[in-house]
Amino acid sequence: MAKGPRISAAVRKRAAQIKVLLMDVDGTMTDGGVTLLSQSDEIALEIKTFDAHDGQGLTLAHTAGLRTGCITGRQSSALLRRAREMNMEFIYMKQPLKMPAYEEIIRNTGLSDSAVAYVGDDLPDLPLMRRAGLAVAVGNAVLEVKHAAHYITEALAGHGAIRETVELILKSKGIWDEMIGKARA
Amino acid sequence: MAKGPRISAAVRKRAAQIKVLLMDVDGTMTDGGVTLLSQSDEIALEIKTFDAHDGQGLTLAHTAGLRTGCITGRQSSALLRRAREMNMEFIYMKQPLKMPAYEEIIRNTGLSDSAVAYVGDDLPDLPLMRRAGLAVAVGNAVLEVKHAAHYITEALAGHGAIRETVELILKSKGIWDEMIGKARA
Amino acid sequence: MAKGPRISAAVRKRAAQIKVLLMDVDGTMTDGGVTLLSQSDEIALEIKTFDAHDGQGLTLAHTAGLRTGCITGRQSSALLRRAREMNMEFIYMKQPLKMPAYEEIIRNTGLSDSAVAYVGDDLPDLPLMRRAGLAVAVGNAVLEVKHAAHYITEALAGHGAIRETVELILKSKGIWDEMIGKARA
Amino acid sequence: MAKGPRISAAVRKRAAQIKVLLMDVDGTMTDGGVTLLSQSDEIALEIKTFDAHDGQGLTLAHTAGLRTGCITGRQSSALLRRAREMNMEFIYMKQPLKMPAYEEIIRNTGLSDSAVAYVGDDLPDLPLMRRAGLAVAVGNAVLEVKHAAHYITEALAGHGAIRETVELILKSKGIWDEMIGKARA
Repeated sequence: MAKGPRISAAVRKRAAQIKVLLMDVDGTMTDGGVTLLSQSDEIALEIKTFDAHDGQGLTLAHTAGLRTGCITGRQSSALLRRAREMNMEFIYMKQPLKMPAYEEIIRNTGLSDSAVAYVGDDLPDLPLMRRAGLAVAVGNAVLEVKHAAHYITEALAGHGAIRETVELILKSKGIWDEMIGKARA
Repeated sequence: MAKGPRISAAVRKRAAQIKVLLMDVDGTMTDGGVTLLSQSDEIALEIKTFDAHDGQGLTLAHTAGLRTGCITGRQSSALLRRAREMNMEFIYMKQPLKMPAYEEIIRNTGLSDSAVAYVGDDLPDLPLMRRAGLAVAVGNAVLEVKHAAHYITEALAGHGAIRETVELILKSKGIWDEMIGKARA
Repeated sequence: MAKGPRISAAVRKRAAQIKVLLMDVDGTMTDGGVTLLSQSDEIALEIKTFDAHDGQGLTLAHTAGLRTGCITGRQSSALLRRAREMNMEFIYMKQPLKMPAYEEIIRNTGLSDSAVAYVGDDLPDLPLMRRAGLAVAVGNAVLEVKHAAHYITEALAGHGAIRETVELILKSKGIWDEMIGKARA
Repeated sequence: MAKGPRISAAVRKRAAQIKVLLMDVDGTMTDGGVTLLSQSDEIALEIKTFDAHDGQGLTLAHTAGLRTGCITGRQSSALLRRAREMNMEFIYMKQPLKMPAYEEIIRNTGLSDSAVAYVGDDLPDLPLMRRAGLAVAVGNAVLEVKHAAHYITEALAGHGAIRETVELILKSKGIWDEMIGKARA
């Protein structure tokens, strides 16, 4: 519980109400690296690097009954494969504006903003962070996003920021300890 | 505005005049990693890793009316794809000497050196840094390049150095705050 | 022998008995990056980054007569190639629970738990760490795994944690110095 | 010349005599990451990440008349392409023992050990470091290699260690400043 003391009661209260965990992809689930492989013929394929600890966190979140998803401006089969491995329910790609996706999720789940957490790192995430019940900025988010966040992760993007968010939520709900034994590789 | 105080009035004055933002690629838009994928047959394909925060910065620069471009000694479809995603107007590849490309841009735009910013990290960038109205060295540039710069970014190459430069220019022009709401994923 | 003093006699005693060195893969042999290359057609290929110092350590371990292996939830030809390059005898992939693989190794080798070392970083590794004679957590393991470990490496996963473990074992056996001259590139 | 004072006169004297600069690859020209891309069919392709500053250094070394080369246990077209881009004259791959390659270079060039510099990071490099006139360990070399070195770079492998070595040699010869203007992208 080394990180416990730094989390305010107000943040814990917000986190305890979360039923849906949404997030940006580049710079949030990844370290922000946009990697492209040159093919011989003017085409470049996208490579994405996700984090194993984040993945374990998202899998545990799913096991615990949290619904998860991502909203991003880019599109790649790398993300699609990883999101499916993590049992993500909501996968929105090619979204220059993220609010329509957010509102569709709210509509389809019948939940209120207070039940939604959103993790982001850059300016396009700001509108959703102002709506979500729990707005989380990754440790290396831009200044404007940190200012809009209820919680800033110690971990950097692509290096545990999502895991830290999942633990914050499950610990605030008081169900983290019982999840430990349910972890699968 | 955490970074405001460290920027001199002289640098702000230079930055406010910029209409074209040019930059090196390897070690400036990337972290300097030159990554090659071995194919079975003596061929190796080039992989490049760009930064999402830099990308958001370049997209905002374009929205704000700045014209952007890159000049590099290498050639790859990875760079070509990324440069197009960022709406770069000037893309010069395979340039062992960078001055001819720089002068062609000056000629075609009809602008003077004072309207051009150039971001670099290594010795081949020196001639352009001595010409450009705003010469920027990335945080991990070699010593000679740092000495030739008007401004050295706090951020490292491939980790926000371009974003920091865009913010420097748009803030010096007094138009950063109005750009925030125009960000798209 | 700069690292010698920090290692307790109890840990050295455990390490001296090891005949089989087992380990997790993602976040233990790698830095935890799960990298996927998007193919044109909804498929993404897995890329894994191992560490050259770890590789040299595993090769020396093999030369010294240690038997080595890995147990992981994922599957990739990248791991398969690397494990073979390192002369790993036990390669268990697609293991959501790791205990069956562990017990099969115990059964087939006829060894007791005290002859087995296991290196891990995350929750699915916990059951094996509680069984193994020497439980090692990589320097950036999650808190629960560090608590379950007899030894925590100074090195981070994918940056020498396995090498440090091999040196711990071979030095505790008093055979490290004679292995140095047997290193091959 | 920020790094000047830390370099002893003895090291400068050794460096001034160098005519051939040889080096290891993994963990010396790269950061030690051994990256493999899984193909569908049990095959994995090797990816290597080199450093742009190192590349500029090696190109300048060639321009200055230094002969360069690498000796490694692995084999990849990635290395082959990079070595050729850097105008390396000696490219020895698949060398479990490195001494035969070293001695062939000595024989073919007719030079003595005192004219050869060797940069390495791990145990297989030790025999060559004991022979070479200038033995350089990268900043993150293993302890045994650091102990065998005349000079340890401040820079880490894959992040400027080769560039630092080239500058050490060319500055010791008093020809660095005249090389700056000869840099090409």
